[in-house]
Amino acid sequence: MTTSEETGSGPTTDQRPGATSPGDQLRRLLVDEAPCVLMGVHDGLSARIAVEEGFRALWASGLCISTALGVRDSDEASWTQLLNSVESMVDNTRVPVLVDGDTGHGNFNTARRFAGRAERIGAAGVCFEDKTFPKMNSFFGVGHELVPVAEFCGKIKACKDGQQDPGFVVVARTESFIAGQGVDEAVARAEAYAAAGADAIFVHSRQPTAVEIAAFSARWHGGVPIVIAPTTYHRTTLDEFHQLGVGGVIWANQSMRAAFSAMRKACRDMRSSGVISGVEEEIASLKEIFALLGYEDLEREERRYASFDPPVLSTVTGGNAP
Amino acid sequence: MTTSEETGSGPTTDQRPGATSPGDQLRRLLVDEAPCVLMGVHDGLSARIAVEEGFRALWASGLCISTALGVRDSDEASWTQLLNSVESMVDNTRVPVLVDGDTGHGNFNTARRFAGRAERIGAAGVCFEDKTFPKMNSFFGVGHELVPVAEFCGKIKACKDGQQDPGFVVVARTESFIAGQGVDEAVARAEAYAAAGADAIFVHSRQPTAVEIAAFSARWHGGVPIVIAPTTYHRTTLDEFHQLGVGGVIWANQSMRAAFSAMRKACRDMRSSGVISGVEEEIASLKEIFALLGYEDLEREERRYASFDPPVLSTVTGGNAP
Amino acid sequence: MTTSEETGSGPTTDQRPGATSPGDQLRRLLVDEAPCVLMGVHDGLSARIAVEEGFRALWASGLCISTALGVRDSDEASWTQLLNSVESMVDNTRVPVLVDGDTGHGNFNTARRFAGRAERIGAAGVCFEDKTFPKMNSFFGVGHELVPVAEFCGKIKACKDGQQDPGFVVVARTESFIAGQGVDEAVARAEAYAAAGADAIFVHSRQPTAVEIAAFSARWHGGVPIVIAPTTYHRTTLDEFHQLGVGGVIWANQSMRAAFSAMRKACRDMRSSGVISGVEEEIASLKEIFALLGYEDLEREERRYASFDPPVLSTVTGGNAP
Amino acid sequence: MTTSEETGSGPTTDQRPGATSPGDQLRRLLVDEAPCVLMGVHDGLSARIAVEEGFRALWASGLCISTALGVRDSDEASWTQLLNSVESMVDNTRVPVLVDGDTGHGNFNTARRFAGRAERIGAAGVCFEDKTFPKMNSFFGVGHELVPVAEFCGKIKACKDGQQDPGFVVVARTESFIAGQGVDEAVARAEAYAAAGADAIFVHSRQPTAVEIAAFSARWHGGVPIVIAPTTYHRTTLDEFHQLGVGGVIWANQSMRAAFSAMRKACRDMRSSGVISGVEEEIASLKEIFALLGYEDLEREERRYASFDPPVLSTVTGGNAP
Repeated sequence: MTTSEETGSGPTTDQRPGATSPGDQLRRLLVDEAPCVLMGVHDGLSARIAVEEGFRALWASGLCISTALGVRDSDEASWTQLLNSVESMVDNTRVPVLVDGDTGHGNFNTARRFAGRAERIGAAGVCFEDKTFPKMNSFFGVGHELVPVAEFCGKIKACKDGQQDPGFVVVARTESFIAGQGVDEAVARAEAYAAAGADAIFVHSRQPTAVEIAAFSARWHGGVPIVIAPTTYHRTTLDEFHQLGVGGVIWANQSMRAAFSAMRKACRDMRSSGVISGVEEEIASLKEIFALLGYEDLEREERRYASFDPPVLSTVTGGNAP
Repeated sequence: MTTSEETGSGPTTDQRPGATSPGDQLRRLLVDEAPCVLMGVHDGLSARIAVEEGFRALWASGLCISTALGVRDSDEASWTQLLNSVESMVDNTRVPVLVDGDTGHGNFNTARRFAGRAERIGAAGVCFEDKTFPKMNSFFGVGHELVPVAEFCGKIKACKDGQQDPGFVVVARTESFIAGQGVDEAVARAEAYAAAGADAIFVHSRQPTAVEIAAFSARWHGGVPIVIAPTTYHRTTLDEFHQLGVGGVIWANQSMRAAFSAMRKACRDMRSSGVISGVEEEIASLKEIFALLGYEDLEREERRYASFDPPVLSTVTGGNAP
Repeated sequence: MTTSEETGSGPTTDQRPGATSPGDQLRRLLVDEAPCVLMGVHDGLSARIAVEEGFRALWASGLCISTALGVRDSDEASWTQLLNSVESMVDNTRVPVLVDGDTGHGNFNTARRFAGRAERIGAAGVCFEDKTFPKMNSFFGVGHELVPVAEFCGKIKACKDGQQDPGFVVVARTESFIAGQGVDEAVARAEAYAAAGADAIFVHSRQPTAVEIAAFSARWHGGVPIVIAPTTYHRTTLDEFHQLGVGGVIWANQSMRAAFSAMRKACRDMRSSGVISGVEEEIASLKEIFALLGYEDLEREERRYASFDPPVLSTVTGGNAP
Repeated sequence: MTTSEETGSGPTTDQRPGATSPGDQLRRLLVDEAPCVLMGVHDGLSARIAVEEGFRALWASGLCISTALGVRDSDEASWTQLLNSVESMVDNTRVPVLVDGDTGHGNFNTARRFAGRAERIGAAGVCFEDKTFPKMNSFFGVGHELVPVAEFCGKIKACKDGQQDPGFVVVARTESFIAGQGVDEAVARAEAYAAAGADAIFVHSRQPTAVEIAAFSARWHGGVPIVIAPTTYHRTTLDEFHQLGVGGVIWANQSMRAAFSAMRKACRDMRSSGVISGVEEEIASLKEIFALLGYEDLEREERRYASFDPPVLSTVTGGNAP
């Protein structure tokens, strides 16, 4: 696999020696992998599991974080609550995390503040979508409305102008298809967003096949990677997406949905049987959990750090000013 | 004010008209149900699912909340982080939530502050254990140490003296068995804790059978309910616990462990196959998730509240001073 | 539903025995005192000081909380950050706190969630204003825009329908004058808001005299108290406001502004002199601070609770099952 | 005074080109300035004011943050609450912030987690003190107890081993004098802490003169800078501290104490007079506050970003894969 330095082009041509910010890493994956998969997670545990299973990038899903908090994906959680969950992901993993920033929580300024805090706590990038605030989850209901193109471009530009790390990634997501618009609108919007500075375009679709993605991809010449989330068109393979020229594939909510059904089944079985033992075989042991979270590391560190006798100071001459 | 002992009918004889605080509800369940099951949960979603499946009380597990946050059950999450997760549970359910307060996070004062905030945000009660701080999860390692009895009694008393709602429940958990002590120590500690004001005694054991619980129960005359968590002795039925005189059974971590294994399996399957569709049948649909979280309610409320024309004011005579 | 005017006894006629919720207390003050002063505060300390100095109600100012956080009063702080600061006020005082809810942070649903959490953590009420989101502080700039009346009425109604405690107060604030509208608009809006359920009307003005308040008050027959914040028309006395029929006077930001100038002066003096002693006489001693925050109480409690030997249990007959 | 670059040794010899982490900046100030003053602050506003007045480094005081939250400096605020306040400081300023980490909130592991989060959110360093947890503020009461030297050394070493940025500063604070110990104990402890990796030694004293500091300084040959907080010995000048070889002087709580007395005076004056105008001259105007917080910047940015028309895309050839 060639690195971006070797190919010498695109947003990954950061020439800083040893550039390894989370954003840099995500940039490379979006261009190098074929395509890069971002596993959707909702808390520190799901993030740890995804990384343990080999995923090299994470998607901090607004839907999944909201669901874990017990609220609806309609801006019911505050933006700092969402970022607190993101902190749990970032603190516990070493792979880049792309953060779902929904519509930006207000205007260019709130979006910029969201992006700024996401960057500060170690996220690799944020993604904003071109719907009105408060939003409704794209898979629910009809009547999703888009904001004017220039308003959304301002939001993207404000974030790009404000980032500290040049590698930090800002993804622009167009909900054109969700809003019932055609490929012309989607491409026109995406081009404007890329021109405003977006590092990638997330084109969203809720069709049962990748037909809209294919139509968009065939028309796309915007110079930045395409990102998608095949929640409804889940039969398409990564190879097929690769041939469509897709750079990033978000498996947005399957982990949370797996947790959901497993928790419901366990509750139901235990409630009806009045005993735990029936589910015992189906659920992870505490030992497995302790292993993933490194309990034995802590035991070792306890021996190392609970008490430490520093080496005798070498004879120091001179005072406290070095 | 007469105590419940004087009236001869236990902690549920609250005569306040319409007393329905979360603490009152939990008190009744601990005495009335035979025994009451508290389902262990770790976030707003697991709480909603448990209640949807019929559980009438919840246990906000320190182990499970910590695990969801991606950290170890060794006081790695701060006490306010734990209570933020509890808020997600309480805000989304109508059943009483008993909060795992670990060792109280320091001394009588930090324990009291933890209990105070738990009460304020709507929890039914808190549970503190008699180990040293920082604690290690009771199912991991050896060398668990107990604090002096009088120190722990002071912690319990400080919480009882500080609560606003007389119904708020303070459970004292003894880790005597976990620390390798026998039933004499467990009973002596439990009696002291009850005398210091504890509303229930949680006696913890990690034996493969309920033998320690049976031994404790046979000796228990402390006047307050026994609570247990049969994580390791999971084959014992609720009927058997009932015959042992147990008032509350905590199914502490099975829901989280079910989520854990399901998320790992989904990640593994998707990672190895390169496609989502293989797991699609096994995981909850978005529609099910939207149903549990009430997305359609929000749609209805949107129609009701997005715009409201109040009735024309009746002609009002007189000014604004009543 | 009959209004309080029809029953002839105002919002304080709550007949629940011992009704003493924070909302109930605030309601009474708004009607009984002549007028009631709400002291604007921005954190736990300013709240403690205000109560110590005799104020019987507090205003959790959005401008002041934002300023303390170091951000602008333009929805730069998230709604949960604002409420975290409110928690610091409520936890440390016993007087009712009215919370500045700005425009409601989105729509009827986010406003309702804000109000719900404010109620849950112990606030007496919330106040929402009829500007567009994101807002700009009313004392800065021009071009403040109002939302349609029916949209704002829906927001008020959603909050009123959602509150748990019937005493919880929802104040509707009209920015008609700030937006350059006349008294006709202000009164028409206020009447609609009261009809939608608002418990009081906050009419805002930034004139150097109370002329707009007087004009509004003369026209007001809405049946609920008037609340004002004389930040710019600061020469008017409480007696004069009383004669205008005002129920609540918010001294919104003077405490924060006093802190601001004092901190700046201390920094400047110390910076220029290179020594602390010059400001030592002008600033509070640590002893005064320890006194206000009750350090000696903690010392006493330490003696009481650090170790407690419970009384010997009376002989208990019967087991743990009641 | 020579810089670490010149001496070519120690942890300040970071050779990364353009190394400008907050920790690097703080390191340089502790060695270069003569001595460096760290202004104690408690929230985003006090931090902004201090920087505006020319201070080049800040001290995030545990006492002051706790006081602002309305609680006592006895571990009543959780460690994440403290760090949330630190975030408000760091986000709003460009100067290095040294964070008061109290005793580390438990053991080596909680201390390490505190330090880790402090580093992640952009602090320059943390300071831990060698008292038992929960602590009591050093200026209150008697009976302050020290932890064993080896335990505290383990805490320091765990933090040093865990930091990501080699420039991040870990300061070890000895409370030997506060605990009634003499200079021998203070020096012995400080030497052990420096040998365990501490980047500076904070030696605390509550004497009315700098006598203990002078005694310590005369004996100090530990090779790392001395930091002090002359709260009680406030008459000593920076020049005098410079001659004692002190590297950092923390003016720990004067800003908060200035705010305290000013807020109390404003409350008292307004409460007794029944009118605001009496204090109007003494308090900052809203205009001054808007200026410090950059309201006009926001207005300009609003014009720039509320709507942005990106330049027409240059004709792009090739697809979206670079």
